[in-house]
Amino acid sequence: MVDFAMIEAARGRLAGNERLTPLLSSPFLDEIAGRRLYVKAECLQHSGSFKFRGGWSAVSALEPSLRARGVIAFSSGNHAQGVALAAKLHGVPSVIVMPTDAPALKIENTRAFGAEVVLYDRISEDRDAIGERMSRERGLTLIKPFDEPLVIAGQGTVGLEIAEQAKEVGIDTADVLVPCGGGGLTSGIALALEAKAPGLRARPCEPAGFDDTRRSLASGKIERNAAMTGSICDAIITPQPGDITFPIMKRLCGSGIAVTDARALDAMALAFTRLKIVIEPGGAVALAAALFHRESVEGDSVIVVASGGNVEAGMFKTALDGRHP
Amino acid sequence: MVDFAMIEAARGRLAGNERLTPLLSSPFLDEIAGRRLYVKAECLQHSGSFKFRGGWSAVSALEPSLRARGVIAFSSGNHAQGVALAAKLHGVPSVIVMPTDAPALKIENTRAFGAEVVLYDRISEDRDAIGERMSRERGLTLIKPFDEPLVIAGQGTVGLEIAEQAKEVGIDTADVLVPCGGGGLTSGIALALEAKAPGLRARPCEPAGFDDTRRSLASGKIERNAAMTGSICDAIITPQPGDITFPIMKRLCGSGIAVTDARALDAMALAFTRLKIVIEPGGAVALAAALFHRESVEGDSVIVVASGGNVEAGMFKTALDGRHP
Repeated sequence: MVDFAMIEAARGRLAGNERLTPLLSSPFLDEIAGRRLYVKAECLQHSGSFKFRGGWSAVSALEPSLRARGVIAFSSGNHAQGVALAAKLHGVPSVIVMPTDAPALKIENTRAFGAEVVLYDRISEDRDAIGERMSRERGLTLIKPFDEPLVIAGQGTVGLEIAEQAKEVGIDTADVLVPCGGGGLTSGIALALEAKAPGLRARPCEPAGFDDTRRSLASGKIERNAAMTGSICDAIITPQPGDITFPIMKRLCGSGIAVTDARALDAMALAFTRLKIVIEPGGAVALAAALFHRESVEGDSVIVVASGGNVEAGMFKTALDGRHP
Repeated sequence: MVDFAMIEAARGRLAGNERLTPLLSSPFLDEIAGRRLYVKAECLQHSGSFKFRGGWSAVSALEPSLRARGVIAFSSGNHAQGVALAAKLHGVPSVIVMPTDAPALKIENTRAFGAEVVLYDRISEDRDAIGERMSRERGLTLIKPFDEPLVIAGQGTVGLEIAEQAKEVGIDTADVLVPCGGGGLTSGIALALEAKAPGLRARPCEPAGFDDTRRSLASGKIERNAAMTGSICDAIITPQPGDITFPIMKRLCGSGIAVTDARALDAMALAFTRLKIVIEPGGAVALAAALFHRESVEGDSVIVVASGGNVEAGMFKTALDGRHP
């Protein structure tokens, strides 16, 4: 379905188009984490999140005449921007189906990347049905946000880079904490690490109360979230892990970690002060886990993925206002 | 005094210790700038600014028994942190002489990097005299912030990376806009570009009203600033260009550009939204010049250095509050 060879192929298609994001660190964060802490800054990726990789991987793999008809995606925001930018750079149209409550910045950016944005209500409407209908009507190719082998393969290129960058800093054993929505990034990284850095273990991180993947890994079967709203970590709220991503995570990942919104905000503030990067709440849950749940992490070193930085100024200012209850 | 060979030697000493900072871009910023715009994100460097390079270059070049006695530096903040961290990583003591009005975060960080901080009054006391006396009394080696060949050579490694990264994105002719205080970074970059990318031209950028280098380049001789306070760009306020740096800038640099504090704040906000990086006011003047003085820039592409990110939350929130008068 999706394997390491697909990740290597995705990297070949991405070469020269993606940004090799740095692995950042700070002695101040090491002290809080109680171990060496490295941050893979995917917030610096094109479109502001790792989602560009999956979008590019999927768009670039399409047969050219099919690609020319365009692509469609449904997304809470970052996948939208990633697919829209990938489509724009390929010179093909994109339609993005987005929830009405997505941050204005994400809607605006998606439009600015040349996409046609179609809004739907997150509570009352079924985005899958909307996406599939529009896909059928216009001959667009649907690019699912996570449960799609080409997308997982693209996200997996983050894992290839982590394997190489960890080696450069002398780490061969560590937990790799990954913000997890549907599991595309987590499962892709897990597959890459299995092949290239078997001492590194991916572990999904989620917002408390929306920890479907953590609970699914604990029970051994797919569990659902009780609600789809109520966390500021909008980028990683999904109903449940994917049918493709979950078996991969079950086979390869360590246990999940859930963090509160308040600790995600604290992690954003520390990334501002110590790393000079902008992380959005959902992108900060892995850093929050490393900083504030150190007892849940194993080893002398930990690697965390800062998966996205598409946050509005008001929310960022809230993060900077200090420790949150 | 300082030449390209010294920059290459500094790079050799820095290898494996510095962070290769990325060259970032955003189609949204290209549109504002009216050309392709690339941002060399030195705010992501260790210690939060390019100053780590010069500090490391100087500390690493000291004869070991001399180095063991320790180093001393006087600085408005970023040089302090760069030298303190370089000394700490070499396992030697450092004394930092800082102005009493330096941002609290910079004083705190300098201490946290293991330095002994000595405060002085920026208006009534002569930091050079204080530094030289303490240096004499304790056998510390003084590391000047910019008018020191080893420091210029270290900062010049930014120029080596820019030359290589510009080539990777296909640019061989462009203005390279550099935030300029005493001219260590600007002159170092200019020397590196002369040798490695002669189609790239360094140009100093300064806060309006503190544009001593711009005026010095225009008149052909060293001009002084009328005041030392009154801009939020504290990192790059110096009395005048250096005796070593100015002749290099005069020989190699294009004309200077001055920007208001308000435009520096606007540039910080755009870097937040579009690049996901944190830049301090003084570090944002080159980006501000590219974005808001496009008529002063030549060519289809422009490269700007974002030289530091050590900004306190309150100032950053001011930047995020929107366009400034």
